[in-house]
Amino acid sequence: MNELELVRRLASAQRGAPGVVLGIGDDAAIFRPAGGEDLVFTTDMLIEDVHFRRRTHTAEDAGYKAMARGLSDIAAMGAWPRFCLLSIALAPWAKDRWFECFVKGLRLFDVPLIGGDLSHSDRVTADVVVCGGVPRGKALSRFGARPGDTVCVSGPLGGSALGLRTKRGDAWERHLRPEPRLALGVTLRGKASAAMDLSDGLSIDLKRLCEASGVAAELDREPPRFEGATLEDALHGGEDYELLFTLPPKTRRPPRTAAIGRIVEGKPGEVTFLGRPLAARGYQHFR
Amino acid sequence: MNELELVRRLASAQRGAPGVVLGIGDDAAIFRPAGGEDLVFTTDMLIEDVHFRRRTHTAEDAGYKAMARGLSDIAAMGAWPRFCLLSIALAPWAKDRWFECFVKGLRLFDVPLIGGDLSHSDRVTADVVVCGGVPRGKALSRFGARPGDTVCVSGPLGGSALGLRTKRGDAWERHLRPEPRLALGVTLRGKASAAMDLSDGLSIDLKRLCEASGVAAELDREPPRFEGATLEDALHGGEDYELLFTLPPKTRRPPRTAAIGRIVEGKPGEVTFLGRPLAARGYQHFR
Repeated sequence: MNELELVRRLASAQRGAPGVVLGIGDDAAIFRPAGGEDLVFTTDMLIEDVHFRRRTHTAEDAGYKAMARGLSDIAAMGAWPRFCLLSIALAPWAKDRWFECFVKGLRLFDVPLIGGDLSHSDRVTADVVVCGGVPRGKALSRFGARPGDTVCVSGPLGGSALGLRTKRGDAWERHLRPEPRLALGVTLRGKASAAMDLSDGLSIDLKRLCEASGVAAELDREPPRFEGATLEDALHGGEDYELLFTLPPKTRRPPRTAAIGRIVEGKPGEVTFLGRPLAARGYQHFR
Repeated sequence: MNELELVRRLASAQRGAPGVVLGIGDDAAIFRPAGGEDLVFTTDMLIEDVHFRRRTHTAEDAGYKAMARGLSDIAAMGAWPRFCLLSIALAPWAKDRWFECFVKGLRLFDVPLIGGDLSHSDRVTADVVVCGGVPRGKALSRFGARPGDTVCVSGPLGGSALGLRTKRGDAWERHLRPEPRLALGVTLRGKASAAMDLSDGLSIDLKRLCEASGVAAELDREPPRFEGATLEDALHGGEDYELLFTLPPKTRRPPRTAAIGRIVEGKPGEVTFLGRPLAARGYQHFR
């Protein structure tokens, strides 16, 4: 297998799409932005033995996860995906077939793949950049939560943490194939005062949202839990990829989402749960 | 050191710039495209022991190289840099100070860094995405070379290969700190029929340009050589990051560039040098 063949394979996986003037095969890809649209960009690495394991994740699982993480960020901004770029270093054990299936997993989402880079390393290391589009000035951010706003989550939490522990059943499926909440993100445009995706765990992510907005939060009920998940899983488990968002008073909450507390004045980033301080214990790199 | 501190450090390295609505610190960065502009995207990985070595490259060298490679692609498209994204996995040996100096090297070019991802791995692995802007429809590509066009290079070749061999003097500097030909790329808009950057070596890159354009090429003189470089270095050495471009008949060649041959009809991708077939022997991954 040589680089040109790999590039050809990637190029054939790319389909024409609005705004894509030139895809894979040149020094750079060309994208023509639509008028009146802001573009949002997110980048996520997926590293063997850090974000996935060869023994427990198929190539397709790895590709799916690499893309789902980026799309979840796009959802959190209220944007819709426009295109993606893939850089990947393959390891000696990852052959043609593995790479093919990885790309298949990545492309289950049908986001145009317009460029990338190929290399080699000891461990498979991928970096996926996703670009999304959102009407000008309508992107959601973490910065707008205000005292009095309701704190909401988009669905049951802790499933991914439970799955990671048990490696079986629905929870393991939940861990392997999270669903980026893209449609909900679009629904929240012009409604939510702040939003982010739950990638590292409710406790640490809510703290981050509060810090960014300069506010505190009081959680006055337990978050909805994935079946079988513990309260610990739901409060601190990562990789659920549900949305965490805040709604100003009198804003109607979208169906199948849950209100779990409210934004209050206080030390920025301080979060209480049922009246007691909630420690931020979600996932952090470089601990 | 924790992730938040690293993110803050990166955020402080970012400066406001045209179109940058929101930089580091949210789920995604927001960019507002200028009307009438196409955006070009390139992504390049920089991996320890593949693209740089801890013993021979300082952190600043590595950062410089990571960005220079992307900017060279931007130059080849006739675009000007708008912003960049950095994903990096740090190795146990790469501490705070190393990372700071890496970012310093990256930012010698003053391209706004608007987002990224941080992780860890056995080897330092970085992926840099650069976005450039170019007036609508004016981007250069590899596809437009036509029989009768002149084949040109932007400067002396082989310096990087020589430097890699000798590890000293001007040639080593040339290898460590190539100059992306951004201004020349802009000059070539509306003039060059095709362009690309010389990253893997003249012989293989010219073959690629000819394949993309469906033409052949005859080189009727030796390419300009970096002082001390052999003909072999100049024909096959990679990482010079000069531009290779073709000019239609009667187009004025920019100063300090060299004409080395012409585009002819023939088997797409076939290149001859002084009348004999030139084998493509530049750098390829996955050989």
